[in-house]
Amino acid sequence: MANRPFDMLNEAIGKEVLLLLKGDVSIRGTLKAFDVHLNLVLDNAEKLENGEAKTKYGKLMVRGDSVVLISS
Amino acid sequence: MANRPFDMLNEAIGKEVLLLLKGDVSIRGTLKAFDVHLNLVLDNAEKLENGEAKTKYGKLMVRGDSVVLISS
Amino acid sequence: MANRPFDMLNEAIGKEVLLLLKGDVSIRGTLKAFDVHLNLVLDNAEKLENGEAKTKYGKLMVRGDSVVLISS
Amino acid sequence: MANRPFDMLNEAIGKEVLLLLKGDVSIRGTLKAFDVHLNLVLDNAEKLENGEAKTKYGKLMVRGDSVVLISS
Amino acid sequence: MANRPFDMLNEAIGKEVLLLLKGDVSIRGTLKAFDVHLNLVLDNAEKLENGEAKTKYGKLMVRGDSVVLISS
Amino acid sequence: MANRPFDMLNEAIGKEVLLLLKGDVSIRGTLKAFDVHLNLVLDNAEKLENGEAKTKYGKLMVRGDSVVLISS
Amino acid sequence: MANRPFDMLNEAIGKEVLLLLKGDVSIRGTLKAFDVHLNLVLDNAEKLENGEAKTKYGKLMVRGDSVVLISS
Repeated sequence: MANRPFDMLNEAIGKEVLLLLKGDVSIRGTLKAFDVHLNLVLDNAEKLENGEAKTKYGKLMVRGDSVVLISS
Repeated sequence: MANRPFDMLNEAIGKEVLLLLKGDVSIRGTLKAFDVHLNLVLDNAEKLENGEAKTKYGKLMVRGDSVVLISS
Repeated sequence: MANRPFDMLNEAIGKEVLLLLKGDVSIRGTLKAFDVHLNLVLDNAEKLENGEAKTKYGKLMVRGDSVVLISS
Repeated sequence: MANRPFDMLNEAIGKEVLLLLKGDVSIRGTLKAFDVHLNLVLDNAEKLENGEAKTKYGKLMVRGDSVVLISS
Repeated sequence: MANRPFDMLNEAIGKEVLLLLKGDVSIRGTLKAFDVHLNLVLDNAEKLENGEAKTKYGKLMVRGDSVVLISS
Repeated sequence: MANRPFDMLNEAIGKEVLLLLKGDVSIRGTLKAFDVHLNLVLDNAEKLENGEAKTKYGKLMVRGDSVVLISS
Repeated sequence: MANRPFDMLNEAIGKEVLLLLKGDVSIRGTLKAFDVHLNLVLDNAEKLENGEAKTKYGKLMVRGDSVVLISS
């Protein structure tokens, strides 16, 4: 079990994650990198609308302060 | 009784909590970890709409500055 | 009379307070703890809608930067 | 005449002020205390809607970063 | 010509300025004081709606982080 | 070519720029000054609505944290 | 593969990127420069609406804290 919040991100590297961003934007992709500001890099990313893929992004960097939650 | 706000979080580790996030998002789950920025890790988490579970997340990290309140 | 804003909070410990949070959320409960960031712990808390109790929370931590005002 | 913004607040202690807060909330009351973060304590405070008193608060602390403007 | 942004404010002391604040609030008045946070004091201030004076404020302090722009 | 973001602003001094501010406000004018916070001074500035000049400002200071983008 | 979020930006210099900014603004252009605040300079930039180019900007500086995500 993760004992600190960022441990969860370490365990999620290379796996699929689901992001909820401010402005009610949902993104799904493979977590490639993150830093202490919660800036994230995803690969094979896509934007979801009503649970379905709407926009394919390829490689994506998300600014940390846009992040509401990260699910793995 | 908690004498400082974070004491309440220490007592809530391993228990179910209810979160209200900015943008009127409600999340319920088991509190696994937190840090001083109020970043939180929940397990068995789900998003609620009108009090009912709508989305199951499994493990979840919530960015601290999205948090409005935490109920235990 | 309070000479500094936080004196008012010290005097309100153990008493009922009414909070207005960002996003027009109103909370009523007994103030148990606070810190310099205005993080607050309430007991017997409830969310109000149109002045009536709608959701009972029990123990509650409010993140300071969600607070608009605190009335005692 | 005030030469620095906070001089105006010093002169307003004990007098009635009108606040405009974020989210278009208007508050009127007697200024009792303030600090460098613009946290304010008011007495005999009331929330105004369309210029009329709607909610009586008694003693009130306003978080500084909610403040848009203060009129005396 | 002003070479740094705050030079413009120095030149505007004692003159009428027009402010645009967050939340689309327009204020007109005489600039009396400012500080490095862009906190401003205006005299003979009034709130404008559709270009017409709607609310007279007398003396006014505006919190810097509410300011979008200042015109002189 | 600019190698750092602020090089672009240095090159734009004395030229016409187009600003997009938070809250979907568009401003056009001649860039006179800027600082590291992205506070900007424009001359001959005007607010645009649907691409047409609506309000003439003369000299204008824009608070940096209102800026979304600057085009030259 | 990028191991840190900013590595992705280094690799994207000189290439076309797609930005999502706060307020649901989409921008496409060639990445010319960036800094640690995620301030970005784009060339041949255009604003997209519903996936189509609506406004041509030429050279553009985007303030870092407006950025939600960057796709390459």
